[in-house]
Amino acid sequence: MTTSHLDALVDALRKLPGVGVKSAQRMAFHLLQHDRAGAQQLARALDEAVRGVRHCARCHTFTDQALCAICSDTHRDARQLCVVETPADQAALERTGSYRGYYYVLMGRISPLDGIGASALGAAGLMARATEGDVEEVILATSFTAEGEATAHVLSEGLKARGLKVTRLARGVPAGSELEYVDLSTIAHALVDRR
Amino acid sequence: MTTSHLDALVDALRKLPGVGVKSAQRMAFHLLQHDRAGAQQLARALDEAVRGVRHCARCHTFTDQALCAICSDTHRDARQLCVVETPADQAALERTGSYRGYYYVLMGRISPLDGIGASALGAAGLMARATEGDVEEVILATSFTAEGEATAHVLSEGLKARGLKVTRLARGVPAGSELEYVDLSTIAHALVDRR
Ligand SMILES: [Zn+2]
Ligand SMILES: [Zn+2]
Repeated sequence: MTTSHLDALVDALRKLPGVGVKSAQRMAFHLLQHDRAGAQQLARALDEAVRGVRHCARCHTFTDQALCAICSDTHRDARQLCVVETPADQAALERTGSYRGYYYVLMGRISPLDGIGASALGAAGLMARATEGDVEEVILATSFTAEGEATAHVLSEGLKARGLKVTRLARGVPAGSELEYVDLSTIAHALVDRR
Repeated sequence: MTTSHLDALVDALRKLPGVGVKSAQRMAFHLLQHDRAGAQQLARALDEAVRGVRHCARCHTFTDQALCAICSDTHRDARQLCVVETPADQAALERTGSYRGYYYVLMGRISPLDGIGASALGAAGLMARATEGDVEEVILATSFTAEGEATAHVLSEGLKARGLKVTRLARGVPAGSELEYVDLSTIAHALVDRR
């Protein structure tokens, strides 16, 4: 092996999404020159996460336990199940403090170009979860992008076929924005979804 | 300890320069969902780099050995010493194939705002290296930024005081560019440095 430790580190940093060779070099330089303790902390955190992080048996999000903290909380409203794409989306909803039901985390979205259809997305897991308990309403909170909409559409069909009420987050003008600066398709949707 | 492995990983990823909380979440999600082998490779590379990478005894760059590959090469021109800020700058010069002397890698540049003066930069190491052997000319290849220019200025004083010939990379119009699109200060410098 002729690769130096530095080259190996630059290569490994390029495994991170959005990191090209220039950023990887800058990161390696920074860690080795200014923050070796940070580099060791990152190595340990990666190791422990790979070993310790698994999927929640009920909602499929990342967790260190068999069940995540939210699924373990028996005081939430079991009649509502909110479907999100990622743990970050779930965290955003939790921060609003205005949802008290449970979640199902898809860990992705349908993306035909990447070969991810409903089955690769694990839609079967959602169908099982949505029909196993007291769920009455499934709120689809996938992104308002082409792929997120396609995901919502496909899941909606399956859920409705199982007799569940299916809703979608409202599209509309973001709070605090002036109409003049909002893009046209958002205004058009807000008009259609007016109440 | 109540922090989850996932939170600890997001925190650790934020040690990387230019990585905020959103990017760190996206990176952690990608590694755990799609590339656990990549995460383990990165953990190992960090560990080995922290353990194995040190500074070359002659030129101060990163190396796995006591002397780096370039300093170990006895076929280069010992009369020329090129001063660069980082290993990446050195690599860029090497790729041109038009320099056959040795290097000194500062591993930074003077930055009064960050409290990095000539001594923090290890200028003493450069002075020792420049005067120890057969060096006749020191080529200052620090950046053409305010900090890079300040660095070149300070080092130049010390090197000239030791009787060395000091040169600087030429400023000018980049190869392949149309004058119309080159910024004015570059054109002005190219006029002054015309040959
Ligand atoms: Zn869960
Ligand atoms: Zn060296």
